[in-house]
Amino acid sequence: MSPALLQHPHFISLEGGEGAGKSTAISAIRDCLQAHGHEVVLTREPGGTPLAERIREMVLNHTPSLPVTEPLAAEAELLLVFAARAQHVREVIRPALQRGAFVVSDRFTDSSYAYQGEGRGLDPAWIADLERRVVGLQPGLTLLLDLDVGIGRARTTGRDLWPDRIESEHDDFFQRVRAGFRARAQAQPERIKVIDANQPPMGVAAEVARAVAVFIGDTEA
Amino acid sequence: MSPALLQHPHFISLEGGEGAGKSTAISAIRDCLQAHGHEVVLTREPGGTPLAERIREMVLNHTPSLPVTEPLAAEAELLLVFAARAQHVREVIRPALQRGAFVVSDRFTDSSYAYQGEGRGLDPAWIADLERRVVGLQPGLTLLLDLDVGIGRARTTGRDLWPDRIESEHDDFFQRVRAGFRARAQAQPERIKVIDANQPPMGVAAEVARAVAVFIGDTEA
Ligand SMILES: Nc1ncnc2c1ncn2[C@@H]1O[C@H](COP(=O)(O)OP(=O)(O)O)[C@@H](O)[C@H]1O
Ligand SMILES: Nc1ncnc2c1ncn2[C@@H]1O[C@H](COP(=O)(O)OP(=O)(O)O)[C@@H](O)[C@H]1O
Ligand SMILES: [Mg+2]
Ligand SMILES: [Mg+2]
Repeated sequence: MSPALLQHPHFISLEGGEGAGKSTAISAIRDCLQAHGHEVVLTREPGGTPLAERIREMVLNHTPSLPVTEPLAAEAELLLVFAARAQHVREVIRPALQRGAFVVSDRFTDSSYAYQGEGRGLDPAWIADLERRVVGLQPGLTLLLDLDVGIGRARTTGRDLWPDRIESEHDDFFQRVRAGFRARAQAQPERIKVIDANQPPMGVAAEVARAVAVFIGDTEA
Repeated sequence: MSPALLQHPHFISLEGGEGAGKSTAISAIRDCLQAHGHEVVLTREPGGTPLAERIREMVLNHTPSLPVTEPLAAEAELLLVFAARAQHVREVIRPALQRGAFVVSDRFTDSSYAYQGEGRGLDPAWIADLERRVVGLQPGLTLLLDLDVGIGRARTTGRDLWPDRIESEHDDFFQRVRAGFRARAQAQPERIKVIDANQPPMGVAAEVARAVAVFIGDTEA
């Protein structure tokens, strides 16, 4: 039997669809944790190590100098994402947690359930098996920035001249992804807190900071 | 439940350790099949498609212009190899088999059981699960070129100025790999034929051609 999943009290992830405001909110979390005197490591997925960032480029097909026209099979996408995550956990996340730092990741395994599971239609039992075998660890707190798909798309349109492989998907794909995230939050309400991302950045930042303060108050109490 | 594995009668793989003579023997197989009037597609793993070859470079860390010093976790190695295999099966192997060609691959899934399973110590039940989910297909005939590890090493020494990540392993790793291959051949004697690779190239080629002729004689009879 594979070992169980450990929820680590110094590990926080941000989840949500494209344009939900994850990259914007992450600095609010850093400020909040630093104000409490903690070392903070900010990171992101897919990526977070040199090798994992190379895998990210293959998944997003986002290197204009190395365009690959070959379609990426859904199964290969899932395996690449978990290969990158294996490196990220081993090289960055575990060492930081072991020295007592907080780790805040822009996306983590919940994104695999939402994008590769609900979005691509891959078996969630397979994803859970990979999570146990390759990751072994969950965030103690996950903030889901929930946003209407059309509003998120309006926010990101024009951000990139070259939308990546995932950004180029259709709205029904992103509707499945959003539903997948919400279903996970409903199933794991202790860990995953839903934040209404359809408010001005200050409002999102305030809610995010509040959730983080409650979380570290709970774990440090 | 995942679908069962199909053993395809037009799919042949060559297996064995470093320097066993796989790349040398593959042309004997091509000649034999072409003499029987068949279209033949020669390919190799990890690799066989543009994306899979990029994954190969990450696994073997063999791109002098992009050296990565980050150690690759065994789990990530396994997932990368299967991501490449997913692309290879979908883009190259299945289309060729569907149009009636023979496919001859220099390495296939048996190498994952030997290298990532026995060599790295990863759970063979996990590898079998990935094989069912991602590959779904086995060669009808696998030729295992079996060779003493020291003799194989002597053959390849000097071949490359820059030995790759796997070639740089120690002899006990390759001893486990060899034992892993032999155990699989013993467990699946119908599919996997062991060939003594410790003979001159002409002798190996003759044995390989004989095994292929018997195989296509059987399947075409
Ligand atoms: N709450 C918000 N309201 C309006 N626009 C926002 C908000 N949060 C972020 N943005 C803007 O939307 C775009 C996407 O935000 P970003 O943080 O990159 O989202 P994500 O990382 O979730 O894709 C950026 O241009 C950002 O400035
Ligand atoms: N039967 C053999 N006897 C001696 N040397 C061989 C034999 N087969 C191949 N070689 C040589 O050994 C080296 C490795 O052979 P190769 O076919 O590349 O092995 P592999 O692909 O299994 O690593 C090459 O230099 C090749 O010329
Ligand atoms: Mg972002
Ligand atoms: Mg070779």
